[in-house]
Amino acid sequence: MLGPRVWSSVRQGLRRALSSTVGGWASGEGRKVDISGIYPPVTTPFTATAEVDYGKLEENLHKLGTFPFRGFVVQGSNGEFPFLTSSERLEVVTRVRQALPRDKLLLAGSGCESTQATVEMTVSMAQVGADAAMVVTPCYYHGRMNSAALIHHYTKVADLSPIPVVLYSVPANTGLDLPVDAVVTLSQHPNIVGIKDSGGDVTRIGLIVHKTRRQDFQVLAGSAGFLLASYAVGAVGGVCALANVLGAQVCQLERLCLTGQWEDAQKLQHRLIEPNTAVTRRFGIPGLKKTMDWFGYYGGPCRAPLRELSADQEEALRLDFTSNGWL
Amino acid sequence: MLGPRVWSSVRQGLRRALSSTVGGWASGEGRKVDISGIYPPVTTPFTATAEVDYGKLEENLHKLGTFPFRGFVVQGSNGEFPFLTSSERLEVVTRVRQALPRDKLLLAGSGCESTQATVEMTVSMAQVGADAAMVVTPCYYHGRMNSAALIHHYTKVADLSPIPVVLYSVPANTGLDLPVDAVVTLSQHPNIVGIKDSGGDVTRIGLIVHKTRRQDFQVLAGSAGFLLASYAVGAVGGVCALANVLGAQVCQLERLCLTGQWEDAQKLQHRLIEPNTAVTRRFGIPGLKKTMDWFGYYGGPCRAPLRELSADQEEALRLDFTSNGWL
Amino acid sequence: MLGPRVWSSVRQGLRRALSSTVGGWASGEGRKVDISGIYPPVTTPFTATAEVDYGKLEENLHKLGTFPFRGFVVQGSNGEFPFLTSSERLEVVTRVRQALPRDKLLLAGSGCESTQATVEMTVSMAQVGADAAMVVTPCYYHGRMNSAALIHHYTKVADLSPIPVVLYSVPANTGLDLPVDAVVTLSQHPNIVGIKDSGGDVTRIGLIVHKTRRQDFQVLAGSAGFLLASYAVGAVGGVCALANVLGAQVCQLERLCLTGQWEDAQKLQHRLIEPNTAVTRRFGIPGLKKTMDWFGYYGGPCRAPLRELSADQEEALRLDFTSNGWL
Amino acid sequence: MLGPRVWSSVRQGLRRALSSTVGGWASGEGRKVDISGIYPPVTTPFTATAEVDYGKLEENLHKLGTFPFRGFVVQGSNGEFPFLTSSERLEVVTRVRQALPRDKLLLAGSGCESTQATVEMTVSMAQVGADAAMVVTPCYYHGRMNSAALIHHYTKVADLSPIPVVLYSVPANTGLDLPVDAVVTLSQHPNIVGIKDSGGDVTRIGLIVHKTRRQDFQVLAGSAGFLLASYAVGAVGGVCALANVLGAQVCQLERLCLTGQWEDAQKLQHRLIEPNTAVTRRFGIPGLKKTMDWFGYYGGPCRAPLRELSADQEEALRLDFTSNGWL
Repeated sequence: MLGPRVWSSVRQGLRRALSSTVGGWASGEGRKVDISGIYPPVTTPFTATAEVDYGKLEENLHKLGTFPFRGFVVQGSNGEFPFLTSSERLEVVTRVRQALPRDKLLLAGSGCESTQATVEMTVSMAQVGADAAMVVTPCYYHGRMNSAALIHHYTKVADLSPIPVVLYSVPANTGLDLPVDAVVTLSQHPNIVGIKDSGGDVTRIGLIVHKTRRQDFQVLAGSAGFLLASYAVGAVGGVCALANVLGAQVCQLERLCLTGQWEDAQKLQHRLIEPNTAVTRRFGIPGLKKTMDWFGYYGGPCRAPLRELSADQEEALRLDFTSNGWL
Repeated sequence: MLGPRVWSSVRQGLRRALSSTVGGWASGEGRKVDISGIYPPVTTPFTATAEVDYGKLEENLHKLGTFPFRGFVVQGSNGEFPFLTSSERLEVVTRVRQALPRDKLLLAGSGCESTQATVEMTVSMAQVGADAAMVVTPCYYHGRMNSAALIHHYTKVADLSPIPVVLYSVPANTGLDLPVDAVVTLSQHPNIVGIKDSGGDVTRIGLIVHKTRRQDFQVLAGSAGFLLASYAVGAVGGVCALANVLGAQVCQLERLCLTGQWEDAQKLQHRLIEPNTAVTRRFGIPGLKKTMDWFGYYGGPCRAPLRELSADQEEALRLDFTSNGWL
Repeated sequence: MLGPRVWSSVRQGLRRALSSTVGGWASGEGRKVDISGIYPPVTTPFTATAEVDYGKLEENLHKLGTFPFRGFVVQGSNGEFPFLTSSERLEVVTRVRQALPRDKLLLAGSGCESTQATVEMTVSMAQVGADAAMVVTPCYYHGRMNSAALIHHYTKVADLSPIPVVLYSVPANTGLDLPVDAVVTLSQHPNIVGIKDSGGDVTRIGLIVHKTRRQDFQVLAGSAGFLLASYAVGAVGGVCALANVLGAQVCQLERLCLTGQWEDAQKLQHRLIEPNTAVTRRFGIPGLKKTMDWFGYYGGPCRAPLRELSADQEEALRLDFTSNGWL
Repeated sequence: MLGPRVWSSVRQGLRRALSSTVGGWASGEGRKVDISGIYPPVTTPFTATAEVDYGKLEENLHKLGTFPFRGFVVQGSNGEFPFLTSSERLEVVTRVRQALPRDKLLLAGSGCESTQATVEMTVSMAQVGADAAMVVTPCYYHGRMNSAALIHHYTKVADLSPIPVVLYSVPANTGLDLPVDAVVTLSQHPNIVGIKDSGGDVTRIGLIVHKTRRQDFQVLAGSAGFLLASYAVGAVGGVCALANVLGAQVCQLERLCLTGQWEDAQKLQHRLIEPNTAVTRRFGIPGLKKTMDWFGYYGGPCRAPLRELSADQEEALRLDFTSNGWL
């Protein structure tokens, strides 16, 4: 864990860098890192007294390690990152890195509201072993986050990040869709390798693939509900909350898409839509964690103000899995 | 054209029917009519003084007749139906029926705000030769249009319609997404054969296909922007404004999807997204009509309050076609 | 009632007028008509078989005539105008005119989707006795209804209308807020006298009053929920659904505001908010009509697809009145 | 400034408290603290290298101290609190406390995403001299923030806060309107004294005043644009970004409202709407800070990703002040 002195020194250096002109990042030779594949965005387990339970985290990772995932997203929206301190965010990534085999990619969420804090967190994430940084759009002032502001923000972060950057657009949480023209501009940055798009607008996903086709830029679907459709229009993988509980099935859907077995893919995709909606939009992280408990993982409680599901909600959640033959 | 006396008699009969209990429609034996395929939603040509130009309408149809469309949608949103009188709506359908070969399906938009008016218009559309009625959700009181209200509305219409009914959900115009549970309930009606879904949410489209899989219910994508993705999740065709100008290409995309040539389909789909957005969401019917002028059809003016494009808009519109190699 | 021949002749004349340049309307000398005061937007009573019940309409008007209203709005959103035929719309206005004393203003809703139809309906409304036309924004293509389109639309209507025009912005139904800059431009037209604003944004209402202060332009609040606040920022009256059931109280609130008794006004306003929300946003016209039945008027059924309230809804509606001491 | 050891000890104690049952807060006897009046939400000045400029902060406070404000809001949305570290947030409040006369209330924004972090920050804010804590709704998971979750969150915070709590609803930033029923429930808590409501819906403000009338609960308008209207329906003051530049005028508007001079109040309110919108919704904090530079305060740059205004925007901003006679 980083002590306050290290932080302070990191900050001093970064302030200088942030004041200089853009363009310090020297690279661009050769292809960008390949991030294609399926990633579960891991949840952060908490004890009954709301402390991070690192033991349970490792147990979950151990179980998830049996599936052919490309890697893991840590501190995505499902990781309750806004509820963690900076130290906890880094410690969770540290532990995941230790628990993962070296060939699994670790994508660490490092987005903060300010550009400076995002740079600091990104650098720190690299130091504790993240392979790439997944950077959510700043959102509190989303009314001012036009293309120019976002291009400036991500360019600074990518300039100063020691690891590749993945853009992250999740309008359901942020109220903000990273504009396509900003994505296209940013795709030309040598240290920006792709985007996780959770908006579910497949026309937009196709357009991004099309307009970045000369940039070695990779698109990940942000949810299992539109995974097949995203593959069909050129996405190369997905970050899927559902993969925390139906890991085999999501990987199977990937395989069917990649091998062109579209009919079987369609049938499987159909059976995943309701369970996926249940653990995302419909019941959120409390729904995902409850389902993890059912499937042999540790879900456990969320930090407040997120609440446990009511008995009625739990029943509806279960029905979304049983009616599709998963429970 | 229907005279006022005929209308009056039609109305009297329908009032009686509307007051009786639901269920008069006797059918259900055998499969529903097959509506799979591509349909251009034809525009309504106007003269310089804003009269319907039936001659230009026929010329357009003659040119469009060279493509392997399944049929034509008349009086969809692109037909400016809210700007036409009831007589004009029927006369347009009459003329299209006369101009079309018998094997082309004619889907006529017959939605009105009230259930009663919708029934009347649907019956009249059948009388003038429509093969099926495409019924948009009522929208002025969309705050009250919950599932119960919409199920009641469509059931009444389907009960009394002499021709099959296609549901039509177009939230960009109506502010209302026909709820999935209402669609599932309505799919069981013997006289409701499918839905045109213009919302572009492919997760929703997949779910509708999945939950109506035992009902012989058909889903048409409402726009060319997500046509490939819709096929991938089980749609059987599309109603595509873009087919009014790039008819061959939209039919080609259909063929590539149906024959499993997904890579070529993806490349073609990509090049259609910007042109499609340009003639729909971005520049609306004025954009579509302007483009028709470029492609050898008669576009002409819209009725007020729709305005012509400015020179700047026209240039942006053109760029969306030239940058994708279509002009 | 207008026969088809009259309509046809009206249309011919108007087509010519619409093709000519703007500016035919000759007036502008002297002050615009004073529309200040309270108006109930009357409902349209229907029989059990959904015919317009003109007798009940007259009975309601007779009872409402005992309150010091400035006049009545006929064919506003609460009048279910989208469910009426053109003939019914005119006949309702005809009957209201006959039932009203000459000193009560009759504001008739004459908005249609097309400019041409709106002009025709406005002219006809004048012919059957409307004192002013209240013209709702066209809405089906609201994505294209920018300021330029709306200014053109309303200018044409005002140019050709024999009676003064009141703008009508009701975003809850239309998805469209008439932009302030368009309102300011239109306020300069000699035949446009004011706006009914139902959006409830009192900052906007204040700004409209401020920016039209040199134009003799009058603002009416579109709902009783923000009537006091609207008076406080310069509105001169209100069109209030609630006045159909609590007519004395709404007129009392007007009087308290006009005489500067703000403390009593505030207390009364407070007790009207929940009942007002109940008969508008919360339960819509079915809620308003049910309440009319309780208060000694004829409410009766709505036309489909509007549905009656459930027993639970009815109870909640009643509670909003009883808990504020009105039932 | 709090060192890490103090933080750690604070946290330990709070964890225990958070695990216990609700209800530790012992008070309720006597009236709640009076928060009526006008508050500028102070901006956080930054140097050219984006460090907090405490000297400029004090200079601004010194100048603002000449107006009859009730107090100051520190770390509201205009304070760029999401861009500050915890240490900076506390240090800013510390400095403001030192700079303020004892009779000026200091309302400190202490909202964080998690309940635990919010409690910790609230306690710390009390320790550095805040008179009350203004707690914004958590927002990243706004889809899950129903009344139950928010009631639980605020109850925990109020139970454990040594200083009174003011609720803070600002949907433009958070995508979330604190539901009226939650406000009513929370108004009964002895340590919750009021709400700052920035939504601008005066019907809602009136309803909150009405339904909490027996609770000694105070409502502050969150913007100068609807200040007069808010007073008219029962608010007792306002937190107004505009007061950072037009402090005398906002206080004058308060005085006119409190003394019942509604006509003059209306005229003044009218002239404040455009300037207010300019420094809030239209141009945000960059607009507010630019205006502060014009009016003799130190505005200076924002932290990234907020950007400076373009020359065009600056001109439009200036026009909103000059056209109303303020520049």
